[in-house]
Amino acid sequence: MSSEPQIYLALVHYPILNQAGKEVTTSVTNLDVHDIARIAKTYDCKGYFIVTPIDAQRQMITKLRHHWDKGSGPLLDHPRRVALELITPVASLKEAAEQILKKENEYPTLVATSARANRKAVSFAEMRRLIHKTGPVLLVFGTGWGLAEQAMGLCNIGLESINGVNGYNHLPVRAAVAIVLDRLLA
Amino acid sequence: MSSEPQIYLALVHYPILNQAGKEVTTSVTNLDVHDIARIAKTYDCKGYFIVTPIDAQRQMITKLRHHWDKGSGPLLDHPRRVALELITPVASLKEAAEQILKKENEYPTLVATSARANRKAVSFAEMRRLIHKTGPVLLVFGTGWGLAEQAMGLCNIGLESINGVNGYNHLPVRAAVAIVLDRLLA
Repeated sequence: MSSEPQIYLALVHYPILNQAGKEVTTSVTNLDVHDIARIAKTYDCKGYFIVTPIDAQRQMITKLRHHWDKGSGPLLDHPRRVALELITPVASLKEAAEQILKKENEYPTLVATSARANRKAVSFAEMRRLIHKTGPVLLVFGTGWGLAEQAMGLCNIGLESINGVNGYNHLPVRAAVAIVLDRLLA
Repeated sequence: MSSEPQIYLALVHYPILNQAGKEVTTSVTNLDVHDIARIAKTYDCKGYFIVTPIDAQRQMITKLRHHWDKGSGPLLDHPRRVALELITPVASLKEAAEQILKKENEYPTLVATSARANRKAVSFAEMRRLIHKTGPVLLVFGTGWGLAEQAMGLCNIGLESINGVNGYNHLPVRAAVAIVLDRLLA
């Protein structure tokens, strides 16, 4: 138990829904790697797991991290460098949770995020209090058209969706991560 | 005077500072076009101006909008379509303000955003009240390493910077837009 929040992020590329509601694997994008690392660093998250079962994509992430890690000259001073250090590619959401257990000696609370309303969801105000009263928390974000049932099923809690002003709810996942962290941690 | 906020966004590509503090023109990225349009639509902004003095880049934006506007099949139903309708490419920040004047019959209040602390800046709480008591507001975001002095000088007010948890302040501009709109309008 800790009073300082220990927040981890997971960006899930499988199992994900596509626009037709079918289960798919989405591609890792360079953009999500960089943007979400910088957002995570801003709010002092402890780690950022990129979840994909595709070996080649996990290797690509490792190579990208290595480029900034071992780079010389301007790369050394670039603020992206410290942000990218937060990243760990993993093959599954379960593996992300197990890595947190290993590091923190406590299994994390998995929190599903969704753009869809859910009556059982925990509000932002409740979650803001909860993160100070519990151990590590893994905030789980879906790509594509959201987390598939199997990923939802691994989560302990669902977080309230972000409601826009006019019913339009197609935020980029990068923007959703920024807003969620700001609401919980700012 | 209106009680419902009339918020417009401007993403400025000139005049901008680079990492060395020199005035430059940055490139329009496809990513900023799409992401910020979707964020703007979520918070019911009235328009999103992309400011660049480079003709070819403004034409590229118009072509991109046209692709989604006149596209057929899946494009028609895609939620990006209504978001991209908010976009107008303009050659300068002044042109953006003049287009708002023409549409709203009132010159907008220009609000500079910055990642740098500024003692004279208006707080988010103050700005949240202000937007309900004034006419159109143009929130001005810089690319690169932020708005150059000349762009700052056109603005009436500076908005408080977004403070992270640990002093790291290198949010992607897309994330900054999401957080600012959420703080002002959610």
